[in-house]
Amino acid sequence: MFKSSLILQKVRERTPLIHHLTNYVTMGDCADATMSIGALPVMAEAEEEVEEMVESARAVVLNTGTLTTIRLKAMLKLARKAKEQNIPVVLDPVGVGATSFRARAVEKILDRETPAIIKGNQAEIRFLAGGGDAATSGIHSFAAGGDSLADSCMLRDMLGVPVVVGATGAVDVVSDGKRTARIYNGHPMLPLIIGSGCMAGSLVAAFAAVESDYFYAVASALATMGVAGEIAAERLESGRSGPAAFKKMLLDALYWLEPAELDRRARIEIQW
Amino acid sequence: MFKSSLILQKVRERTPLIHHLTNYVTMGDCADATMSIGALPVMAEAEEEVEEMVESARAVVLNTGTLTTIRLKAMLKLARKAKEQNIPVVLDPVGVGATSFRARAVEKILDRETPAIIKGNQAEIRFLAGGGDAATSGIHSFAAGGDSLADSCMLRDMLGVPVVVGATGAVDVVSDGKRTARIYNGHPMLPLIIGSGCMAGSLVAAFAAVESDYFYAVASALATMGVAGEIAAERLESGRSGPAAFKKMLLDALYWLEPAELDRRARIEIQW
Amino acid sequence: MFKSSLILQKVRERTPLIHHLTNYVTMGDCADATMSIGALPVMAEAEEEVEEMVESARAVVLNTGTLTTIRLKAMLKLARKAKEQNIPVVLDPVGVGATSFRARAVEKILDRETPAIIKGNQAEIRFLAGGGDAATSGIHSFAAGGDSLADSCMLRDMLGVPVVVGATGAVDVVSDGKRTARIYNGHPMLPLIIGSGCMAGSLVAAFAAVESDYFYAVASALATMGVAGEIAAERLESGRSGPAAFKKMLLDALYWLEPAELDRRARIEIQW
Repeated sequence: MFKSSLILQKVRERTPLIHHLTNYVTMGDCADATMSIGALPVMAEAEEEVEEMVESARAVVLNTGTLTTIRLKAMLKLARKAKEQNIPVVLDPVGVGATSFRARAVEKILDRETPAIIKGNQAEIRFLAGGGDAATSGIHSFAAGGDSLADSCMLRDMLGVPVVVGATGAVDVVSDGKRTARIYNGHPMLPLIIGSGCMAGSLVAAFAAVESDYFYAVASALATMGVAGEIAAERLESGRSGPAAFKKMLLDALYWLEPAELDRRARIEIQW
Repeated sequence: MFKSSLILQKVRERTPLIHHLTNYVTMGDCADATMSIGALPVMAEAEEEVEEMVESARAVVLNTGTLTTIRLKAMLKLARKAKEQNIPVVLDPVGVGATSFRARAVEKILDRETPAIIKGNQAEIRFLAGGGDAATSGIHSFAAGGDSLADSCMLRDMLGVPVVVGATGAVDVVSDGKRTARIYNGHPMLPLIIGSGCMAGSLVAAFAAVESDYFYAVASALATMGVAGEIAAERLESGRSGPAAFKKMLLDALYWLEPAELDRRARIEIQW
Repeated sequence: MFKSSLILQKVRERTPLIHHLTNYVTMGDCADATMSIGALPVMAEAEEEVEEMVESARAVVLNTGTLTTIRLKAMLKLARKAKEQNIPVVLDPVGVGATSFRARAVEKILDRETPAIIKGNQAEIRFLAGGGDAATSGIHSFAAGGDSLADSCMLRDMLGVPVVVGATGAVDVVSDGKRTARIYNGHPMLPLIIGSGCMAGSLVAAFAAVESDYFYAVASALATMGVAGEIAAERLESGRSGPAAFKKMLLDALYWLEPAELDRRARIEIQW
């Protein structure tokens, strides 16, 4: 049987280098989350060096927050080189529905350098699957209900290549076309902190760096984020601890998370 | 009678999207503060997308820390579009007195796209009002005494258009030409943390997004920052808790701030 | 006899402005650390303004994380102007061994605008001294043993100009060619947090801003970082407090550090 704890342990043993090309708002949070789970972050962004830097990496995150044309060019180079090296690329299409600039950029990445994994929130995945009306509020998009599984499957089918899709929400959904996972972990404080989605992207990359079945890697990474959120929430003092205390406790819960506790708490339902 | 709590409640009910074009040092802090008070941040900065992104926003912050020519161009586009949409633009002229590059940039913004609101520290407002000798120390400027009210009024008059000026300091001063507010809230720890001024700019924008009398919006936002600082300071452990603990507690105090407590603690003096 | 406390006291009395041209990942951490120790940070990066901004500064940090060609140009301008003003430039060659882009950039800085102080981790200093095999893992490089002192001396000799070299590691080593300091302070949590190396660079600059014997300035700054790490570690709760809590406590320990306690705890061994 599949165990999330085994993937977590491999992350900590191998401390894979995760090359991020990510936004400036949550860059520090992503670096912190990557370290806390036991991997190593690097955030090189110059076109001149991304290809050489990624040679030492074991996975790549492309995050479209605070995107610019210069950074998009670097992302495409980075993704191409990562694919040559056969390491997973995780696309986090932050705010894809918000502007046509981002939509075109994401389309270009999907067309030219289809990533192995797409992780977004429900609204972003829906937008990519063609069902979105670009209802985007800042860097947080709250899909009004909707069917994450249908969207994930449709997006996967549209791309016509094997890709694992993870849609985060009250229930996270992961699909690789054959298998579907629903992850029931998490806490209402998670969407209230800046960077929770971006940090989840870092965890997904760290897990995919050590587990070649990306379906299990993505599901385990999202469960890990959810479990850490639950642990952090148990430590909040009502009326005093808010999002700032929660973010700190979340990162420290990732750091201390015992493999056995992850398995005990993870609520992942898999269907074939 | 005017009540700050009513504006705070409207922020939380409407969760307005606040488009920031701000510096890289405190970008994460501004995002955190915006979320903590109940609004939503977005930090898009590419010239190619700022105009489209701002269509969903309810207020804009332009902050001149870590300014570049590219970012200035994006700011001008963003401000023009915001004014077309009739949403408030808040200018935070960080370090305006420090270099001629910033002084010229701010002048260009004031000339071409006069913002509805200018919020700066006393030294920055004095510099803009023509009385400054550019005595700027890093991102913190400590005005040696001086008369914030006179400076605020002079700046307002110079611009020749209706604009609300807020000058922060030991006592914050807000002026719209007819009315003056003095805000006596705050704590000596506030100027000791990186980002307190920038975060105040985010609060000002969030309040102006829901209250069309910008004079009250600015005064209430600055009082809210001061009150949250007071609450946070009460929770510090002497000899142990420093600026890092204080920043976390400040953000969490914003998150938990009860409207009734804001009115009880706010010390705003208004003169006509 | 030399006392670290005297340099710390001078930092707090003079609150020197430290101009950073540093990476986007830890920029906020560096600003926080600079404020916590009692100095003032500024992070201006536009080529158009760095020369004017540095006129108010008392020391400069050049940090090569997230380097770009544009930022390298600004660094060279900044360093030249700083040297004209006779204020210390601290080079933190982050990830110099990771890509040829960074190696060439650092070579250019060393050639054209040799800094007064080079502070790096052991792997970075070894690489610069010609003994490195570019074994770089993300922004953290763990040198497999090796002789920091030999590397520091070789680097110093190669440059052919007076420069103080500081190599951080389990034991920090500082050399100015005549004197060698070994600093035995620190804690295993320090390399586990993002930004500890970069923050050490900020402290080095703050100390060098007020103490013209850079050898003592660097040694005292690294001891200060180590001592603050020890104090922070004593406050951790096992099983709960991780890197996020530690970073906060580290910054607050810098803020509250008593000069007498610094001298009592500092374990600096100097050889002539």
